[in-house]
This record gives sequence, structure tokens and C-alpha cells, in this order.
Amino acid sequence: MLGIKALTFDTGGTILDWHTGISSALAKVGVRHGLERDWGAITNDYRASSLKAMINAGAEAPATFNIDDVHRQQLDELITKYGLDAFTVEDRQAIWYAWHQLDCWPDFPTTLTQLREKFVVASFTILSVSLIVDTAKRNGLSWDAVISCEMIGTYKTQPKAYEQCARWLALDPGEILMVACHNFDLNAARAVGFKTAFVYRPKEWGAAGPPDPEPDPHHDIIADDFPDMARQLGFAPSIAESN
Amino acid sequence: MLGIKALTFDTGGTILDWHTGISSALAKVGVRHGLERDWGAITNDYRASSLKAMINAGAEAPATFNIDDVHRQQLDELITKYGLDAFTVEDRQAIWYAWHQLDCWPDFPTTLTQLREKFVVASFTILSVSLIVDTAKRNGLSWDAVISCEMIGTYKTQPKAYEQCARWLALDPGEILMVACHNFDLNAARAVGFKTAFVYRPKEWGAAGPPDPEPDPHHDIIADDFPDMARQLGFAPSIAESN
Repeated sequence: MLGIKALTFDTGGTILDWHTGISSALAKVGVRHGLERDWGAITNDYRASSLKAMINAGAEAPATFNIDDVHRQQLDELITKYGLDAFTVEDRQAIWYAWHQLDCWPDFPTTLTQLREKFVVASFTILSVSLIVDTAKRNGLSWDAVISCEMIGTYKTQPKAYEQCARWLALDPGEILMVACHNFDLNAARAVGFKTAFVYRPKEWGAAGPPDPEPDPHHDIIADDFPDMARQLGFAPSIAESN
Repeated sequence: MLGIKALTFDTGGTILDWHTGISSALAKVGVRHGLERDWGAITNDYRASSLKAMINAGAEAPATFNIDDVHRQQLDELITKYGLDAFTVEDRQAIWYAWHQLDCWPDFPTTLTQLREKFVVASFTILSVSLIVDTAKRNGLSWDAVISCEMIGTYKTQPKAYEQCARWLALDPGEILMVACHNFDLNAARAVGFKTAFVYRPKEWGAAGPPDPEPDPHHDIIADDFPDMARQLGFAPSIAESN
């Protein structure tokens, strides 16, 4: 179906549940200092400002920072903004490191194993190499390749990022299915010739966050979740699902 | 032991048995054309000339070619040199593609699984991303990351290649063990601070090829094979070995 040979996965919100992981880390430190805040809202601000700093980075010359640098810097700014100056250096380090300890969405590991039987499956993301490696390790994920924009020096949604990803996989863009829960990433991939799959991640920003985006109708696949995407790619339901 | 957090593996001769794979592919085509040659010797010439074209590439500016380009070009030159002009375009394609279908040394898969329990384990090689992905797929290997010099733009044994590899793994060079069957690669890694493990691969160049190199004595580990290396890193013998 679709003539694809590889799937490339946005990893931040599509695979990793950053909202739960980071809001928990913030809350844990906050409670210890007797501070009450809307940790979920602060987390969403943290994620939004970090994304803003990375998207399209390196458009003119290779980016000189990665998402880990940005996560450190944005955390310091949030601490000032939300009056969290009680947070110690160790507290900040623990919150920052929580990005490397995120859990993945529970429907992904089984689907990944299934997809790898037929396709090359790569993480393709603005996250750093080491963040992808650490979270893969923690969640028992084995990617065929980790293609971080950090390696390319140019970040999504710049066309060059997608073109280089395809070149390293030695595939035509039309042989690659970009998978994400965000239209902006998929549309940029589509503009250079990738096929696209939108997967709903309704809890990406937590219960109180912005609503889950509605998929643009032109995506090749629109799936309720990862098992649904696998079914649309011709895989039989996994044992876990059929039980 | 050694304070290491990651192992990076030279992949060409250290993991993949290129001599058997390529000499078989050449012989298969040669026999069909009724040609008799020393296919093992031609294979070793092929490998040596390809290595020579890649090592230190990109020292001044990012390399504009990868090992697949070199394998194609060197094959054409060998065909002329050894009077193999009867080889058709399809024959050449089949031989070239044999690089992406190489088998790994049989002692590696079990050791890789074992090592990944405690360490980040990456392929770090002058081979292209797609060659590593294809051979991993074929041999059932799961690397935590594929760090090809193609991604860096600067090839071993340039210091920049090792430095960038360490940066992407977010580790100090001293936290990484470079594993290879070649002193030149290990010594270059050691010069930027990596720990080093020499593993004997006595059949790398086939039975009639040059003798297996003798390890320089300063390597942190000198191992007879991969299970021996794993033992020296503190792993218990695997079930496969103890049977």
C-alpha cells in the first residue's frame, strides 16, 4: 500500500508523553518547596516556548544549539516567569533530565515491533540524538535509525531537513511515510514529496491543554491510534489487541 | 569497568563479513560469464581501494560522496582492471547491492543484545546510513543509534568525526568504548579520549588475505572475539556459549 519502504516518526508528542512526564517532574519539585501552581499549564508553556525556539532553526547556517540546550534555557526563564526561584540547581537538573526519562504512549511499542517486520522505521525529530536514545532505552524501543535534526543542522519544517532524511535513508521522498500528530510537520514533509499519516494523540497537551488538532483531509492515512495506523498499512491486529 | 556508558562499533570489517559476501557475489556473476579469476583477491582490492577513498574524506569541507558512491565507482574501475567487461549493468548492480546484504560475524548478534542491557550501543562507521540499516535488518541487529560518518560529513580517522560522535551521544569521549579490529581506527579514537577495545577478526580479509593485525598493546581491552569482550566488560557467558 502506498509504495512505501520506510516510516519516519515525529517523536516529541507523537511518541513521547511529555505532558505527563514534565508536569510530574515540576509538581514533585514544587510540592517539596510548598509551592502551588498549575503545573500542567506551566508544562505546556515550557513545551510551546521550546518548540518555538527549535522549529526552523538552522535555516541559514547549521544550528549551534539543540533541544537540550533550549530545554535548559527555557526552564530558567519559566522559573523567573512563574516565581519559582526557590528551585535549586539540583531541582532544575532533575526537571531538565525528566525530558530524557519520558514514557512513550502505551500503544506504540507493540506497533513499532510490528512495523519493523516490513519497513525501515526511524525516529525523525527535532529532539536531540541522546534524548531519543535515552527514551528508547527506557521504553524498550528499537528504532532502525535515529535521524535527529541535530545531525542535519537544519530543523523541521525547513525542506532541507526532510530532504536530508530521505537522502540518508537512500529513498525517494515518496517511498517514506511521515507519521505525526501535527499537521505542520506532515504538511512540510508532504511539500517535499513524503507520504503522510496523521495519528490522533488527544492527550498530548494534557486534559486542560489546547484541543487535539483536526487532521487536514489530504493526508494519506488518518488514524485513531497506532494499532489503527498499522491496520491501515495492512497489518493484522496484534495479539495484544485481539485479546 | 572503565567508567564507560556507550560502545561505538566500527562496522565494516568488525561486524560485517564483507569478504565472503562480496567474493561470493563476484564469483556468482563471473561463473555465469565463464570467467575464472581470484575473486577473493579482487574483493580485497575492491575493499582496500574503497577504504582508501573514504578514510579522512571531508577533512576540509563536508564530503560530497558516500561509501555507496565509492563502491559503485571502484567496481567500474575493477571491472576494467581485471578484464571483466562482460559484466552487464544488472551484474554490476547485483554486486554493488551485495554490500547492503552482507552477513555479520556469527558471534555478534547475541553479544549485541547482551551489551544493550547495560550500555548505549551504536554503529559508528564510514559506511552509509542505508548500508548500516539494511545489514542490521538482514541480520536482526538493533543498534541504539546509527552514527555514520556520512551524517557528520567528516570521516574517520579525522578527530572531528570522533568528537561529533561523542557530542551526539552527549558523553565525554572517555565514557565511550570504541570497538574495532583495526588499530588505526582505535588509535584515532584514543587520541580524542575514547577508551578502546581491539577484537580479533582473523578472517576479515579471507584465508588468503593479509594477516590479521596485531593489536597495539595500549588498548583498554584486547579480545579474542565478541563473547570474550563481553566477559571482559563483566557480562556472564551467554546461554548460547555455556551450552
